[in-house]
Amino acid sequence: MTRYKLTLEYDGTDLIGWQENRQGASVQSLVKGAIKSFCQMDVDVVAAGRTDAGVHAYAMVAHADLPESDPETIKRALNFYLNDSPVSILDCKNVFDDFHARFSCTHRNYRYIILNRSAKPALDINRVWWIPQKLDIDAMQNAAEKLMGNHDFTSFRASECQAKSPIKTLDMVKIKTDGEMIFIDFSARSFLHHQVRNMVGTLVEIGLGKLLDIDEIFAVKNRSSAGPTAPATGLYFVSANYATND
Amino acid sequence: MTRYKLTLEYDGTDLIGWQENRQGASVQSLVKGAIKSFCQMDVDVVAAGRTDAGVHAYAMVAHADLPESDPETIKRALNFYLNDSPVSILDCKNVFDDFHARFSCTHRNYRYIILNRSAKPALDINRVWWIPQKLDIDAMQNAAEKLMGNHDFTSFRASECQAKSPIKTLDMVKIKTDGEMIFIDFSARSFLHHQVRNMVGTLVEIGLGKLLDIDEIFAVKNRSSAGPTAPATGLYFVSANYATND
Repeated sequence: MTRYKLTLEYDGTDLIGWQENRQGASVQSLVKGAIKSFCQMDVDVVAAGRTDAGVHAYAMVAHADLPESDPETIKRALNFYLNDSPVSILDCKNVFDDFHARFSCTHRNYRYIILNRSAKPALDINRVWWIPQKLDIDAMQNAAEKLMGNHDFTSFRASECQAKSPIKTLDMVKIKTDGEMIFIDFSARSFLHHQVRNMVGTLVEIGLGKLLDIDEIFAVKNRSSAGPTAPATGLYFVSANYATND
Repeated sequence: MTRYKLTLEYDGTDLIGWQENRQGASVQSLVKGAIKSFCQMDVDVVAAGRTDAGVHAYAMVAHADLPESDPETIKRALNFYLNDSPVSILDCKNVFDDFHARFSCTHRNYRYIILNRSAKPALDINRVWWIPQKLDIDAMQNAAEKLMGNHDFTSFRASECQAKSPIKTLDMVKIKTDGEMIFIDFSARSFLHHQVRNMVGTLVEIGLGKLLDIDEIFAVKNRSSAGPTAPATGLYFVSANYATND
């Protein structure tokens, strides 16, 4: 068996998320199904991040151990079996056995997209969070800067989060605008469950004029002190970084 | 009655096109339905361009005569009634009675988007024409330049086209790339039926290495001399220009 690194794009709208589950189609179950059709084997597929239902990916990274074959052939075959699904294999490459999509990952990059205009989205439905009220970008920017660094993110953590520690280092938050679109980019070694969506929900509350103090939210260590969880539709897993050139 | 200029965004995927018809939802029937719900009247809605099934719009322009009301109120009300539809009213403004979305239009601008990569689209499904074989952009660019100007476009005209004359002036064709995306922008006072899609189909044949000569295609005046009709999914009505500041 040879280890392959897969890069996947997906539209999360009609999926239950990355993780396989008895109910509904997940990215993992679709990719495992395609692998089974291709090489008649049940193999595990491990991803850099287990995205939730409705969350999209520009380039999720996963690995799987398969019988040796030309990577381009694997890519084409899996895309053939994924043809009617919202998942596409962008790249497949042979990696060393110690490459692990989840544990070798040094940075995860997410993007959150907001459509800030009075008219509802038509072309970008299920692709953005539509906020009709004008957002104060400067206020959001100031708050975003305070999110960066090493903190106890308990206030931004979903109750069902299974991480051992709530202490994480957020290396980057960047807010950019392009007309009516607002892009918020995040980068960290790892994130708590719903951390990005809870940070976005808080930044949006601030953008709407609510006087929330990030330092105070960190200090109280209580989920109810932060803003609501932003909808999954606006969230994209952008890329995963690895120490080697894998 | 007061004339209003409406600017519309729509996702054409599940629509039969602009034009109202007994079968299926059209942009026109949806907007007329929203107007009827709002002011209990059957009024006509006239657009700058009658896009085909599957064609999208970033900013289609239309006009309708309605009982006088605040334009922002009309916009909000129509969007309320269009809530579950793939149509959104981006703007509504009061215009003079001689404004005509179709006849006053001086330029129509279209964009065609191609996804040129080996992996099938996941996020951009129904939004692009996916071409897995590498396209020769330089060859397409050279051919595109020959399309510009005043020509008899018979070879690029659908058989069902109702225009009186096949002679049109194509003012602009511009090809830009951004990674795997290819954008082809067109601008003209008006276009023949399927003209943009037939020009794109021809440019793509040339990009795939087929030796088609644009001058010769113009000269023979025969639809079969040009390339196939590009799929509707990649086509967007971008904007309509008017002489006044309407």
